[in-house]
Amino acid sequence: MKFLFLITFIHILPQCSGNPLSRHHTTSEEIKREIARYSDIAKAIINLAVYGNAQNRSYERLARFVDTIGPRLSGSKNLEMAIKYIFNALQEDGLENVHLEPVKVPHWERGVESAMMLAPRSYNISILGLGSSVATPPEGITAEVLVVTSFDELHKRAQDAKGKIVVYNQPYISYEETVKYRLLGAVEAGKVGAVASLIRSVTSFSINSPHTGLQKYQFDVPKIPTACISVEDAEMMARVASRGTKIVVTLKMGAKTYPDATSFNTVAEIVGSKYPEQVVLVSGHLDSWDVGQGAMDDGGGAFISWEALSLIKELGLRPKRTLRLVLWTAEEQGGVGAQQYYQLHKVNISNYDIVMESDEGTFTPMGLAFTGSDKARAILKEIMQLLQPINVTNIYENGGGTDIDFWVRDGVPGASLYDDISKYFWFHHSQGDTMTVQDPSQMNLCAAVWTVISYVIADMEERLPR
Amino acid sequence: MKFLFLITFIHILPQCSGNPLSRHHTTSEEIKREIARYSDIAKAIINLAVYGNAQNRSYERLARFVDTIGPRLSGSKNLEMAIKYIFNALQEDGLENVHLEPVKVPHWERGVESAMMLAPRSYNISILGLGSSVATPPEGITAEVLVVTSFDELHKRAQDAKGKIVVYNQPYISYEETVKYRLLGAVEAGKVGAVASLIRSVTSFSINSPHTGLQKYQFDVPKIPTACISVEDAEMMARVASRGTKIVVTLKMGAKTYPDATSFNTVAEIVGSKYPEQVVLVSGHLDSWDVGQGAMDDGGGAFISWEALSLIKELGLRPKRTLRLVLWTAEEQGGVGAQQYYQLHKVNISNYDIVMESDEGTFTPMGLAFTGSDKARAILKEIMQLLQPINVTNIYENGGGTDIDFWVRDGVPGASLYDDISKYFWFHHSQGDTMTVQDPSQMNLCAAVWTVISYVIADMEERLPR
Repeated sequence: MKFLFLITFIHILPQCSGNPLSRHHTTSEEIKREIARYSDIAKAIINLAVYGNAQNRSYERLARFVDTIGPRLSGSKNLEMAIKYIFNALQEDGLENVHLEPVKVPHWERGVESAMMLAPRSYNISILGLGSSVATPPEGITAEVLVVTSFDELHKRAQDAKGKIVVYNQPYISYEETVKYRLLGAVEAGKVGAVASLIRSVTSFSINSPHTGLQKYQFDVPKIPTACISVEDAEMMARVASRGTKIVVTLKMGAKTYPDATSFNTVAEIVGSKYPEQVVLVSGHLDSWDVGQGAMDDGGGAFISWEALSLIKELGLRPKRTLRLVLWTAEEQGGVGAQQYYQLHKVNISNYDIVMESDEGTFTPMGLAFTGSDKARAILKEIMQLLQPINVTNIYENGGGTDIDFWVRDGVPGASLYDDISKYFWFHHSQGDTMTVQDPSQMNLCAAVWTVISYVIADMEERLPR
Repeated sequence: MKFLFLITFIHILPQCSGNPLSRHHTTSEEIKREIARYSDIAKAIINLAVYGNAQNRSYERLARFVDTIGPRLSGSKNLEMAIKYIFNALQEDGLENVHLEPVKVPHWERGVESAMMLAPRSYNISILGLGSSVATPPEGITAEVLVVTSFDELHKRAQDAKGKIVVYNQPYISYEETVKYRLLGAVEAGKVGAVASLIRSVTSFSINSPHTGLQKYQFDVPKIPTACISVEDAEMMARVASRGTKIVVTLKMGAKTYPDATSFNTVAEIVGSKYPEQVVLVSGHLDSWDVGQGAMDDGGGAFISWEALSLIKELGLRPKRTLRLVLWTAEEQGGVGAQQYYQLHKVNISNYDIVMESDEGTFTPMGLAFTGSDKARAILKEIMQLLQPINVTNIYENGGGTDIDFWVRDGVPGASLYDDISKYFWFHHSQGDTMTVQDPSQMNLCAAVWTVISYVIADMEERLPR
């Protein structure tokens, strides 16, 4: 899931003001005609993915994968197994240049963790420690709670925070807006002398479900243990505190950061027939948080990306440019695998036509989010018309993702799948991220969209302009 | 929540076929005029509850109560504290004849419980033991899993079930239809020699949330430990089994049944001015399962019932008949408190005008569900017109509830609040049953509906006909 870092959404925000009308650009009649000639191929892809032999394949493959491996945290044995599993599967699928590119990745484990409310009543608070959090001492940290609803309130009540466990009960505005409490909650609480922080999970809906995710310490601020709690428990403590009742909590976290581990980006290709050095990159990330099954974030995105190559191969197609599948590692730790890939491959940046990532669910697709020049956008608009048979023709602003933004920032056109994310954050980084939220029909449609777009870009006479 | 016992929904089902049109009955013009004269009182109740001083009161009272006490299982210290708390609160509220009526109630505790999948991978399955389940041996029960989707499939595969842990992955049809797997899953599995049963939670939506509830052993069938699992884990094991992969689980349950405990139904009244011996009963149950806060099931119902008396008292009204609030104990164990109340008071059954219970949520009210004669229904229809200012005028079939069905079966008119239960079972008997699902505005409306109906029935010249 993108927007992991502040830097990411600082980067994204200015683009929000773009007026879609101002982006309108005339595509030459020749290019329009060329794209229209892909109509039969697009229909063949759609038929195979949605109604044909490949129906439900990406779902079935994903189910078998996550049921076998489970969640796949950076540095874990599970992620290692997952990469071996997928490496073998891509080879068995007959894809080309299947290989692994090594990456040093963070290795953090949550260990045993718990939070007990001791006063005003004995109550077991559900928590999920946040990625990179330090541990508490073995006996835990027992302290009074200070509940705040914002960083502003924390700063105003800085004198009260010293020695306390700060509980953030911030309202949910949007993921992009609200995630700063998860990212920076421990730092801001640490600055004012708090001994730990508990953060309301970043979701608009909860069944007492805590949601984990990354947080970032600052070198000059004391590192305090930090975890997410459910919306329900944050609201409960806020109500209790508002009545002037003292809340005392014992937080125990056995979290530990180990030396960086070796992991891999997993790569497979269909090598281009005419311009093999030119690359259309489709991707998702293979790692996940250590809860649920990582089926949605980002199993779905990874497996529709694989499916794109499978479908093209099965149809006996070979585009002029190379279609490259990359399954990133350690995205959840801040795009670590993708950054390494970028460092290694940026020397060839001029050969990258487009970088595509699906990392915001594979629910009912609504179109494509795109970042690139007006000229490129106009071409994409024509390509989207090929998806009229499944009525997914819209093109949106802000194509990107944690793993591909390195390239997009350097001017490479970037695209991400735009789907119905209305429930995405209900499950995101929680125990609820399982195959149950995935739908085979929706995945079929997503795979069709992903395949038509990537194939046509890879096969057109001219490169996608920058 | 009603429909706890098979006997309840066997009782309910035949009524479903009733044609509402055939129930149409003419109410005398005199009664219509009499009811219309309550228009100002109805408006005063609505104004006080929805816009006036009492706005959000039932929500605030409930929040303070559940935040202080927590969940309140039959036989627990929490339930004992809850009854003391509410007894004092009703007295402080100035209600009349506040008293407790003792009841012997079941005392079951879940103890420590866990389920670990050992094969094909190590995975901690979220469970909630079912009420009245026996324990496993301390070392747990380790056995292979047999997944079935129905009792039919279990019977067909009876030979395979011996020595296995039966996992039910039944689809969710409706609560009434599907709850039989929770109620009878252990018995049916026990009959075919299974060593334990794990049952997919009875809900249409889940964030890996198990839902507990009652189950019933049969005297001539071996008692095997039984728990609910999440929809996600039931589906996951079904997928794994469908691939021919062997699943092994270790189930540990420390559940224990203690000797029956003493509990109480809590009663308060506004004594009738003219026919004090005649009773209009409004009710909800005070006990809950031992998860979440029991805010929805049935904190909301109990507290809008209390609110009805508070609002009438605050408006200086005193109906001709006695308005009696009963907060039942041990509903979740099968209407135990209500049965005792019925045994004790049925000698006065002729004095009961109507029994009302709110135990299906206090979400946006849509009307009243009613069971009674056509004549009584026609009068209720008129009374519902008084609720036009808040547009809650519908009347539905099948008024009832676990706690009041004893009376309804004997011919006493019965009514239950009919509200928007579209998400009710998402939270029902799970850790998600907290104040977060309650909404103060919705509770205001429910309280207004409940108060207008109960007051008018208690005050009309003539009794509600049977």
